[in-house]
Amino acid sequence: MVDCLGGKEMDINNNTESLPYVHKVGLPPKQTLFKEITATVKETLFSDDPLRQFKDQPRSRKFILGIQTLFPIFEWGRDYSFSKFKGDLVAGLTIASLCIPQDIGYAQLTNLKPQYGLYSSFVPPLVYAFMGSSRDIAIGPVAVVSLFLGTLLQDEIDPSKDPINYLRLAFTATFFAGITQLTLGLFRLGFLIDFLSHAAIVGFMAGAAITIALQQLKGLLGIAYFTKKTDIVSVMRSVWSTVHHGWNWQTIVIGVSFLAFLLLARHIGKKKKLFWIAAIAPLVSVILSTLLVYVTHADKHGVKTEAIAIGRTFASMKDYHIDGNKEMVALGTMNVVGSMTSCYVATGSFSRSAVNFMAGCNTAVPNIVMSLVVLLTLELITPLFKYTPNAILSSIVISAVIGLIDIEAVILIWRIDKFDFVACMGAFFGVVFSSVEIGLLIAVSLSFAKILLQVTRPRTAILGKLPRTTVYRNIQQYPEASKVQGILIVRVDSAIYFSNSNYIKERILRWLTDEEEHLKENDLPRIQFLIVEMSPVTDIDTSGIHALKELYSSLQKRNVQLVLANPGPMLVDKLHASRYAELIGEDNIFLTVAEAVHTCAPKMKELVEP
Amino acid sequence: MVDCLGGKEMDINNNTESLPYVHKVGLPPKQTLFKEITATVKETLFSDDPLRQFKDQPRSRKFILGIQTLFPIFEWGRDYSFSKFKGDLVAGLTIASLCIPQDIGYAQLTNLKPQYGLYSSFVPPLVYAFMGSSRDIAIGPVAVVSLFLGTLLQDEIDPSKDPINYLRLAFTATFFAGITQLTLGLFRLGFLIDFLSHAAIVGFMAGAAITIALQQLKGLLGIAYFTKKTDIVSVMRSVWSTVHHGWNWQTIVIGVSFLAFLLLARHIGKKKKLFWIAAIAPLVSVILSTLLVYVTHADKHGVKTEAIAIGRTFASMKDYHIDGNKEMVALGTMNVVGSMTSCYVATGSFSRSAVNFMAGCNTAVPNIVMSLVVLLTLELITPLFKYTPNAILSSIVISAVIGLIDIEAVILIWRIDKFDFVACMGAFFGVVFSSVEIGLLIAVSLSFAKILLQVTRPRTAILGKLPRTTVYRNIQQYPEASKVQGILIVRVDSAIYFSNSNYIKERILRWLTDEEEHLKENDLPRIQFLIVEMSPVTDIDTSGIHALKELYSSLQKRNVQLVLANPGPMLVDKLHASRYAELIGEDNIFLTVAEAVHTCAPKMKELVEP
Repeated sequence: MVDCLGGKEMDINNNTESLPYVHKVGLPPKQTLFKEITATVKETLFSDDPLRQFKDQPRSRKFILGIQTLFPIFEWGRDYSFSKFKGDLVAGLTIASLCIPQDIGYAQLTNLKPQYGLYSSFVPPLVYAFMGSSRDIAIGPVAVVSLFLGTLLQDEIDPSKDPINYLRLAFTATFFAGITQLTLGLFRLGFLIDFLSHAAIVGFMAGAAITIALQQLKGLLGIAYFTKKTDIVSVMRSVWSTVHHGWNWQTIVIGVSFLAFLLLARHIGKKKKLFWIAAIAPLVSVILSTLLVYVTHADKHGVKTEAIAIGRTFASMKDYHIDGNKEMVALGTMNVVGSMTSCYVATGSFSRSAVNFMAGCNTAVPNIVMSLVVLLTLELITPLFKYTPNAILSSIVISAVIGLIDIEAVILIWRIDKFDFVACMGAFFGVVFSSVEIGLLIAVSLSFAKILLQVTRPRTAILGKLPRTTVYRNIQQYPEASKVQGILIVRVDSAIYFSNSNYIKERILRWLTDEEEHLKENDLPRIQFLIVEMSPVTDIDTSGIHALKELYSSLQKRNVQLVLANPGPMLVDKLHASRYAELIGEDNIFLTVAEAVHTCAPKMKELVEP
Repeated sequence: MVDCLGGKEMDINNNTESLPYVHKVGLPPKQTLFKEITATVKETLFSDDPLRQFKDQPRSRKFILGIQTLFPIFEWGRDYSFSKFKGDLVAGLTIASLCIPQDIGYAQLTNLKPQYGLYSSFVPPLVYAFMGSSRDIAIGPVAVVSLFLGTLLQDEIDPSKDPINYLRLAFTATFFAGITQLTLGLFRLGFLIDFLSHAAIVGFMAGAAITIALQQLKGLLGIAYFTKKTDIVSVMRSVWSTVHHGWNWQTIVIGVSFLAFLLLARHIGKKKKLFWIAAIAPLVSVILSTLLVYVTHADKHGVKTEAIAIGRTFASMKDYHIDGNKEMVALGTMNVVGSMTSCYVATGSFSRSAVNFMAGCNTAVPNIVMSLVVLLTLELITPLFKYTPNAILSSIVISAVIGLIDIEAVILIWRIDKFDFVACMGAFFGVVFSSVEIGLLIAVSLSFAKILLQVTRPRTAILGKLPRTTVYRNIQQYPEASKVQGILIVRVDSAIYFSNSNYIKERILRWLTDEEEHLKENDLPRIQFLIVEMSPVTDIDTSGIHALKELYSSLQKRNVQLVLANPGPMLVDKLHASRYAELIGEDNIFLTVAEAVHTCAPKMKELVEP
């Protein structure tokens, strides 16, 4: 236990004779190994304390809570009221109107027939409504995943030549996607997703949006033969190579005019009151264009006729808590069930959820409403869709993915962190110029590289004394802080692990060498003490102890005494366990830098030569 | 520039009316993007300032320095003296006597004929003497690399069935190993090696030593048919299955007795004066046993005749600096040249270098002496080696690798860091029970996992005020520190990046929830201010800013005001660039916790109910 007289750094006038040394610092209470492991596992995997509510409850209550945790519908369903249903009905109808055209368009991205997109807006939302926790998310196929699935699957099987096996492959992929999500959620490995940086995701999504928009040129321009590749160079080649004989002017007119209409509706919809315009615009386009084609028999004229983040964003807006791992279990189950009922991968859709939110959803019921509407559509209306021009579907998809390009976020990234910006651009160009997989690979690699770089090159700083105080601060940030003669004070701003221990040791020695050169040039006395301020060093491992030992020896050879200041509890523990405290001498470990300076200053030897 | 009056945390009696707020904190001098990139690259890749000596030198001198950097022999060669040569000659002869038997044994590990081991002690040391910087390292084949190479290569080609192509493969592998080392060194990527933890290496080496020792049972027991696998289960099966008809008692007697002799010599050699006994024991064994077999025609009776870490260890003992990347270039060149001259992978050998050091080496000349002795051996003595029993070579290899098992290091690892211990054991058991590759994979994975875990779950702490001071410390470490009524003070002990931003935000909110529950139970006033002490937060990226924004909103909804204290220069910069400072209000950012508490305390509202 620390003697409270140790807090002497504030008052230079106080009596400082009974300065405690580290041997008066009691070691922190020794945790048994078991407790240490339990604490670490708890903080790593269960850091959001998901079983908090189960504490101190009778057994029957625990059972009920358990059922409610697995199937949250039994929790919010109890408080369901008619007023809530009103809001949910409106929201459900709104997102249904948005989802039908999108589903058909996205099914095309996946090289599947339109009805499979609709199936994926039928079963998965129902499963989610039972198991999910978000009150705002809207479930269904999404553009980026559809694109990803489409490009990956068509590398294996050609959908035009072998559609049955292609379909089977799609469902199998969906099944395994679901199993993966389930596993991650059950083993509470959701935190792995934290390792993909926000900047890389922004770049990746923007690149995917561009890629999807480019794919739509096929439908928009009425091109018959189109490249299977997704990168911008191949697509533009396809487009230009058919410019003389492949573009159909009726298709282009219909497509472009409806695209303009959709973009205008989207722009108007940004005002909160008029959001519904943006929401129903796609369906209106579909209906109008279908009628148009039906009436003008335009099809004869050659007009050919196709999450966790979301959850958290809305949750933080409405300020309720989402358990990421629980959500994953819900999404995983949804996809597993979906794969057995002719659905392909569904998840939370950003655009749909935004509309859901603005339309005033209260619970997960809009998803149920939407799936019922989709059911009706499948039973009654689907045959009409063969009249819907592909150009319309293409326009709808383009206007939907435009929203994935977040220019503001990119500008913010540029202003805040240049490495983040490089990661963002790397992911973007990887997707646009190569392929979705390469873009994703770049995004993941750059995220990891950033983590490793942070870890391997921590900051160190030289400290100086602020005048008229005993406070020591970084001399680069506080130019009025002045260095103490004959003493070099270095602060290490990170825990010392194998990944940086060598660097830290060499950096400290280099600070010393630089300082000695400077002193020599100016004929000033040499350094006799090197104080290392250890408060940011939250932990140390064997490589770190090893590096400290080497530092001590190197300094001994240079006639500089190593002094440690302000070690935290974990560090004190390990310095004793490794006998390092014995090695450098327990009277060379102080509670504060001020005490260390105060004790070392009188010990400095006067030398004739520095 | 910070107003030095900001350092007011020390004296509660002083006049505090002119407390500066952050808007008086000048932003640190803006670095251009180019300077920022140059500084980062320099610190990451050139952190040891290798071109320091080139500064301010005339052109001709730079040229000479350049040649000396590439070929250090031109540097130390100039000061070479006869007294140095005396020490080097003795050291060279000593390590030569050790290397000859070891080379033959290690060549067997690699499934190559004995002369290739000797070649690898001829060319590579010569190349190293020209290009290397370590004054103590001894070059040649090493046990672990030989084992690794042997197991990997025999998976591809069976050395007994196709020896010529096996040999070619070995040289090709050596060539590419050299190219890799060269590339890492030239691109200054040597720091990548820092990512393998010391603990994992200790476990891996111990496991490799056990595996090598087990392989020697073939020679020691005279077994004809032996498994190709290296794991302990397969080897023991091989051994026991031949117990009835495969063990040759003469072989066992010779092998075990010489092994006992070698281990005894090794033990005696631990005393510094008698180290030479351990050094020449293997050669003596070889000579004696060869004579014995020759004389007794025992062959008719069925008696069948590790670098950069090393460099650094010795360098730190003698306190000179090794440039890791330059060493890699030297080692890489050595292996590339070696691969073209019938040598296989050579590197610094721990045992040989230790002997070299204790024998009093001064420069890299012992390597030259050793290679000349090897040359003589190859010319004159090699035919005799067919009489050397395999059992002896096996004993020599066993006694050599025993030294790789560092029990003391394992005990130290156990005491200092339990996760490190898991990594150590994981690597050890992976090698022993599976294969060298699996063990290495486990070592690398656990090292990476540890890095990721550190990064994703940083420490946070609740701070309290030390009595009679204005210093705030961790209440778990300083039990006498007391919390301030109505204010919760949290310190975040890490930079806030995407890998931990979500966790940090949720952890802070959980601290708040826990505290509020506790206050409610005890009928105390609720929390109105949450101060985040930011001094350990050395940097922040876009995800971090995003998390801070969400934290702010969540707290607003709970009627708690967010306050930041003590942001570093990098952080102040980004808080302004992202307009976060505007968002929470510039008067809610303070230089110290004490100022923050001092300003917030009067603002607290009296409430009837907490």
